[in-house]
Amino acid sequence: MSCEFYLPVRIIAGRDGVLQQAALFAETGKHAFIVTGNHSARENGALADVLQVLKANGQAYTLFDRVMSNPTVACVYEGAKEARECGADFVIAIGGGSPMDAAKSIAWLACQDIPQAEIFTTVPEGTILPFLCIPTTAGTGSEVTQYSVLLNDAQKSKSSVASPFLFAKAALLDGKYMRTLPQKSTVHTGLDALSHLVESILSKRATEISKAIAFRGLASFAPYLKRLNSTELTLKDRDILLEASCLGGAAIAQTSTTAVHLMGYPLTYFHQIDHGRANGLLLGAYLTLAEEKAPQAVRDVLDVLGFSAVSKLAEVIAGLLGEKDSISAAEAKEFAAASIKAPKCQSGIISLTEAEIEAIYRASLNIQ
Amino acid sequence: MSCEFYLPVRIIAGRDGVLQQAALFAETGKHAFIVTGNHSARENGALADVLQVLKANGQAYTLFDRVMSNPTVACVYEGAKEARECGADFVIAIGGGSPMDAAKSIAWLACQDIPQAEIFTTVPEGTILPFLCIPTTAGTGSEVTQYSVLLNDAQKSKSSVASPFLFAKAALLDGKYMRTLPQKSTVHTGLDALSHLVESILSKRATEISKAIAFRGLASFAPYLKRLNSTELTLKDRDILLEASCLGGAAIAQTSTTAVHLMGYPLTYFHQIDHGRANGLLLGAYLTLAEEKAPQAVRDVLDVLGFSAVSKLAEVIAGLLGEKDSISAAEAKEFAAASIKAPKCQSGIISLTEAEIEAIYRASLNIQ
Repeated sequence: MSCEFYLPVRIIAGRDGVLQQAALFAETGKHAFIVTGNHSARENGALADVLQVLKANGQAYTLFDRVMSNPTVACVYEGAKEARECGADFVIAIGGGSPMDAAKSIAWLACQDIPQAEIFTTVPEGTILPFLCIPTTAGTGSEVTQYSVLLNDAQKSKSSVASPFLFAKAALLDGKYMRTLPQKSTVHTGLDALSHLVESILSKRATEISKAIAFRGLASFAPYLKRLNSTELTLKDRDILLEASCLGGAAIAQTSTTAVHLMGYPLTYFHQIDHGRANGLLLGAYLTLAEEKAPQAVRDVLDVLGFSAVSKLAEVIAGLLGEKDSISAAEAKEFAAASIKAPKCQSGIISLTEAEIEAIYRASLNIQ
Repeated sequence: MSCEFYLPVRIIAGRDGVLQQAALFAETGKHAFIVTGNHSARENGALADVLQVLKANGQAYTLFDRVMSNPTVACVYEGAKEARECGADFVIAIGGGSPMDAAKSIAWLACQDIPQAEIFTTVPEGTILPFLCIPTTAGTGSEVTQYSVLLNDAQKSKSSVASPFLFAKAALLDGKYMRTLPQKSTVHTGLDALSHLVESILSKRATEISKAIAFRGLASFAPYLKRLNSTELTLKDRDILLEASCLGGAAIAQTSTTAVHLMGYPLTYFHQIDHGRANGLLLGAYLTLAEEKAPQAVRDVLDVLGFSAVSKLAEVIAGLLGEKDSISAAEAKEFAAASIKAPKCQSGIISLTEAEIEAIYRASLNIQ
């Protein structure tokens, strides 16, 4: 039997959901600590909506708008310190994966004294500030996961703080906040969502429920893959992409991600390749290998996406990504050596050797 | 967009899950109030497993084994009084829908003074004893819903107390507790699960996630429909049926049930027809009408179940149920008149007239 499931986040989807959920904000706390990046939440209107609701509710707030892409440990400790100092009793995350992932650790560290050196070896539990997530990209799914992914300098990679205590109280989905999302971000985050859906389906930990959710997300995503780079995505298109991304998050909340994500982390750490782009770069070669080792499982994925072979899917992804990024031959070897040591490496239904991982890197990137 | 979702229950499935989850029981409270019926939990071993865990944990417990089929308001007030008197701080429900539904109201009423006359007009919130559910039939799905369905003498029907505060902390699914389930109960509860899955799919409130879950449950259930009355169901078969039932519960937790359940309630209230049997009796005629009004939606259901037409499905269900139960022509009229007034009547994607409801009753039962 395989129907384990846990997803305590209330998912609320719909136009102007933030404005309509004033009561939810009111009941969550008295002083909000708003965690976001330095500009997009202002541009896309999400911050304005949140401030309107907080002001109407008479709630205090402190704005922490210094979350960078791929947030650092220093950033979340800084946020936690400010949250504590201002007396915030709940957190609102606005943005893509970076602000949401940072917000989770901030909500935790604002309540608990954890030495910085122990952040990745501690499993958060007990009192954590309640938090609400407002995703403004369709990719991360972080609004419904229990993972706070941060740069890990000791490992020279990205690592997760993970705990069922890190689920948001609610996720508010509204495609209107993606109106101003740049084309490149739409492509990269969209491929991140695709990667979540596919990796979850091909995970050893997939359950009947996680697969049902991931396949549903894949079906929603399928019509958009070829036109992720379109400049004519409507609000409805955005809504559907956001839904697919959320379903991807709900699925990896059950299964975790697998080797594709793991292999992408050093690309981001050492080469500042956008997280979603890194996954997109690797997905084709990974699935080519998966097709050999687990043909039926990959076929099921391709069927829903509407492709007859992995090569066709890979071609479309490559077209979206444009010129491949470069790494050195030595790096391909080093990244493979590091990957093979991580438990996540074997969390997919196909097992991987170090040589195979190196080959995936070599096939996915320009080797200089 | 339609991906609203809320299901905060931790679903834990697997053999001997109760014994393996000693820590879950330990962390939930100090004194358990065990809510169950008067014999099945003893016969099927679930009570023994729970007591073993509680004793090993050094937890106190009080046994309330007086929940009847279709629990009454009096029963839950009696249970709540006992729970309060013994100082219980959590509840464990063991059984089919009746003990689980009763346990939810007991967990609520043990903490709050609600006048009996207001039980169905009050929406539970605030402090409620945490509770764990151990289903021992594959049908109700109550282990993952927020509904406590009780006999409602004022309405001469069954009514729900419903609230997001009535979700269990965890549901522990183990097919071994159905080893001793009588053939008739397996059939009736199985048809209840089928009804949940189908009604949820055909609900106006269906979302992408609820449908994904319900269709997955339907696919798991499909191979068993024709042999629900088999005396040779294995433990693995039981596990799968329990999973399908749980998915049905997860789906109606999002959408609620619809007209089939509503129409079944008076059959149970006035004729003591088992709840699942009542749904089974009505499902064929309901779907025949639905097939006319929403052919594609019904076709999708039939496809997953492996039937070419509703008539074939109805034949199989009729074969499982044996001789139809009887009501009078006047009752068919009265039940239809009562049904048409309830909001649940129009919660499906097909709208129903009073005459159509009466016709469904007439087609589904012997009219005396």
